[in-house]
Amino acid sequence: MKLYEKLADEIEQAVRRGVFAPGERIASVRHASQQHGVSIKTVLHAYALLESRGVVETRPQSGYFVREAAPAQAASKQAPVLTVASEVDVSRLVLSTLRSIRANDAVPLGSPYPDPTLFPWRRINQYANAIARRHASWNLIDDLPPGNPELIRQIARRYAENGVPVDPDEIIITVGATEAINLSLQAVAKPGDTVAVESPTYYAMLHAIERLGMRAIEVPTHPADGIDLDVLAQIVATQPIAACMVMPNFQNPLGFQMPDAKKRQLVALLAAHEIPVIENDVYHELYFGETRPSTLKNFDTKGLVLHCASFSKSLTASYRIGWAMPGRYRAQVEKLKFLNTLTTPSVPQVAVADYLRQDGYDRHLRQVRKAYRQQARIMSAMVQRFFPAGTRVSSPQGGYVLWVELPPRVDSMQLYQAALAHGITIGPGYMFSTKNDFRHFIRLNYSYPWTSQTEGALRTLGELAGKMT
Amino acid sequence: MKLYEKLADEIEQAVRRGVFAPGERIASVRHASQQHGVSIKTVLHAYALLESRGVVETRPQSGYFVREAAPAQAASKQAPVLTVASEVDVSRLVLSTLRSIRANDAVPLGSPYPDPTLFPWRRINQYANAIARRHASWNLIDDLPPGNPELIRQIARRYAENGVPVDPDEIIITVGATEAINLSLQAVAKPGDTVAVESPTYYAMLHAIERLGMRAIEVPTHPADGIDLDVLAQIVATQPIAACMVMPNFQNPLGFQMPDAKKRQLVALLAAHEIPVIENDVYHELYFGETRPSTLKNFDTKGLVLHCASFSKSLTASYRIGWAMPGRYRAQVEKLKFLNTLTTPSVPQVAVADYLRQDGYDRHLRQVRKAYRQQARIMSAMVQRFFPAGTRVSSPQGGYVLWVELPPRVDSMQLYQAALAHGITIGPGYMFSTKNDFRHFIRLNYSYPWTSQTEGALRTLGELAGKMT
Repeated sequence: MKLYEKLADEIEQAVRRGVFAPGERIASVRHASQQHGVSIKTVLHAYALLESRGVVETRPQSGYFVREAAPAQAASKQAPVLTVASEVDVSRLVLSTLRSIRANDAVPLGSPYPDPTLFPWRRINQYANAIARRHASWNLIDDLPPGNPELIRQIARRYAENGVPVDPDEIIITVGATEAINLSLQAVAKPGDTVAVESPTYYAMLHAIERLGMRAIEVPTHPADGIDLDVLAQIVATQPIAACMVMPNFQNPLGFQMPDAKKRQLVALLAAHEIPVIENDVYHELYFGETRPSTLKNFDTKGLVLHCASFSKSLTASYRIGWAMPGRYRAQVEKLKFLNTLTTPSVPQVAVADYLRQDGYDRHLRQVRKAYRQQARIMSAMVQRFFPAGTRVSSPQGGYVLWVELPPRVDSMQLYQAALAHGITIGPGYMFSTKNDFRHFIRLNYSYPWTSQTEGALRTLGELAGKMT
Repeated sequence: MKLYEKLADEIEQAVRRGVFAPGERIASVRHASQQHGVSIKTVLHAYALLESRGVVETRPQSGYFVREAAPAQAASKQAPVLTVASEVDVSRLVLSTLRSIRANDAVPLGSPYPDPTLFPWRRINQYANAIARRHASWNLIDDLPPGNPELIRQIARRYAENGVPVDPDEIIITVGATEAINLSLQAVAKPGDTVAVESPTYYAMLHAIERLGMRAIEVPTHPADGIDLDVLAQIVATQPIAACMVMPNFQNPLGFQMPDAKKRQLVALLAAHEIPVIENDVYHELYFGETRPSTLKNFDTKGLVLHCASFSKSLTASYRIGWAMPGRYRAQVEKLKFLNTLTTPSVPQVAVADYLRQDGYDRHLRQVRKAYRQQARIMSAMVQRFFPAGTRVSSPQGGYVLWVELPPRVDSMQLYQAALAHGITIGPGYMFSTKNDFRHFIRLNYSYPWTSQTEGALRTLGELAGKMT
């Protein structure tokens, strides 16, 4: 056990025993360093670890505070995958990582978002402006869920063109895929229920589970073809699972595309147990292959697939337009949408619809896909060149992130802190699981055009990782 | 008991006994009419009542279906206010009412939203367009919660100018007040908890409670000055209450402004029991008096007031910009915002900020307030003129709705259906409570300029109500 882990455990124990009350400030980094006779760096690592465990939180310009509602007990660290479901608190780590990315001007290798300069920002805004000018006013009541009919029609059309069977009446417009995922999960499961997720998984999945007071059971997921169906079959056969959440296409962070045969098997396995599956398909337009991949919806015969997607990765992130196609749960999701945020802003919906109908979405996507494919190759080569021996890199089949396995002795939180001192951000493996299975993994974003600055950042990262082995 | 109520009870019993399975279609209106030997109208009323009770739901072009998750038991109808908390399902009735309003072109007396033609739509869109043109792209990561710093500063400035003590760091931008209320409630209470609400109350409050699986206890609320503090004191003294939700200014539907002394008492009463209070203050700019009213925040010494508001009633509804000032629950609400919808769309935030800084918000508000004050007077006079003897009307001190108590024999759902046949919508009293206390009340929207069409609609409504007495 490392020194900073020991310190973190010690403080966590104190919190559990009530030495520090919820909301109370714990010792400053400097003070703790003197008090415990350890380095500033060790304290920083310990506090970051405590934050990731949900024990403390940072407040800007104020320091570290005990969380108001500290979890009843720490997430089990060595729990066997098959038997123990974890309560989830990954969000604090994610939020603090995102803040670091915002505060640092350098190459945002740790960002979960695509390079926004690739989006046709001006074009979409021109449509928005034209719509706003055409109307003397806008009546909110015309925009009640499910959403703008023309946008819904355009989305259904794209699916139909790609062989995904879609009834436009099934589509509900949401504030990004985040809301779609939240509503879908709430429609099918209740607090205390257990939800099966991929491991590693995109943290938005863990967030939804956490927000709704559910429990996650993590299923090993292979970098090449996705969730382990044997393990999943064992889980659903032996315990009640309220829902399963997966990203079959270009999963973040692994980047795989689940083969059609496996998609069919997954849907059949869950359907046999009447378990609804929430499919997060936000990267579906960012494929590197010849054709757009299939979705779980293609193989859904019982209406158990709740398909969630958005334009945030492929067209515009700041417009926050997502959608759900919730199968037999349509009525519930529509109602929850109404209760959650009433409506999705109107002009952005119509602007995207107009863009889809009139503009060059496919041309735009071809360019983006080509750029991402090239940049994936370059970054992968550079990681292999600069990083210490024993480093392994994923082979993404779409999307814009690379998953890097470092030698086991490298702790990704330590690397994250060290990189931050150089103005470089990374996505530490801790964000993608409630357990510590991915402590020596990092996620890198390759959506930004390759520059000498990127190369320098990767070289620095590789050196820092090398020192830790 | 009326015939349609008997029919509704009969069908509800059948559902409870499992005669109709969840998701199953019940008899068509025509078929039921023949089967039970009652009129089409009676069946329609019975089905509407069942829908409001959450037993069945309509699906477009398909008919009536038993809800997937029918409530375990019907809400107690004659329960004494003080002892029985109700599970809430008002949302289905509200959503179907809103749909009727949308489908009917006539005077939207039933609308919960203000006349959008009063909003400075073009001005705000011009700001939005200028912002979009100034930037070559937009990075989502700059818009993480709490929200756009300039908008937060402008909101804080307005509060400060009106004597409400506000720390800008406390403000979190949300997708309308709806999201602010949901997040605030989730931050302070958990599923199964009991929440005290005004009765009647704005249904968004009941929605939030319903969505989160909590229970509502309704506290009698006076049309002149708000929630009954004696009853509330008795409730909090005798049972655990996780939170209280109130609208102290121009409550929808009653329109009262709670006096400062009473606001102080309310805050003190709840603070003595450490009960957080969620203050929905969306109408704060629409006062008829000389000055903007105080808020519960003015009297909050312990950080227990979670203040929620928006621009949707006073500036722009379709931009969906709201905010929360959650006192000591700031960190929780910010995190929940991040989990719920990630961010609020950016350009709308900045456009509103620019409008507030550069344009004539106060001039706009003065015009709106003057119009509403006049229209309230006119509509009130017309209700007294056209409606049957025994009708009583509220005296709103702000906002844009009138609360009308009809003679007890008038059923507001029946009136709603009859009015709909004339293309007129109203807000039936059933929407404002989980109990049947307001069955002979209706809410009328007076935000639209007074026309001969409005006058005709009110005359028709009065005649229809007269026939029912």
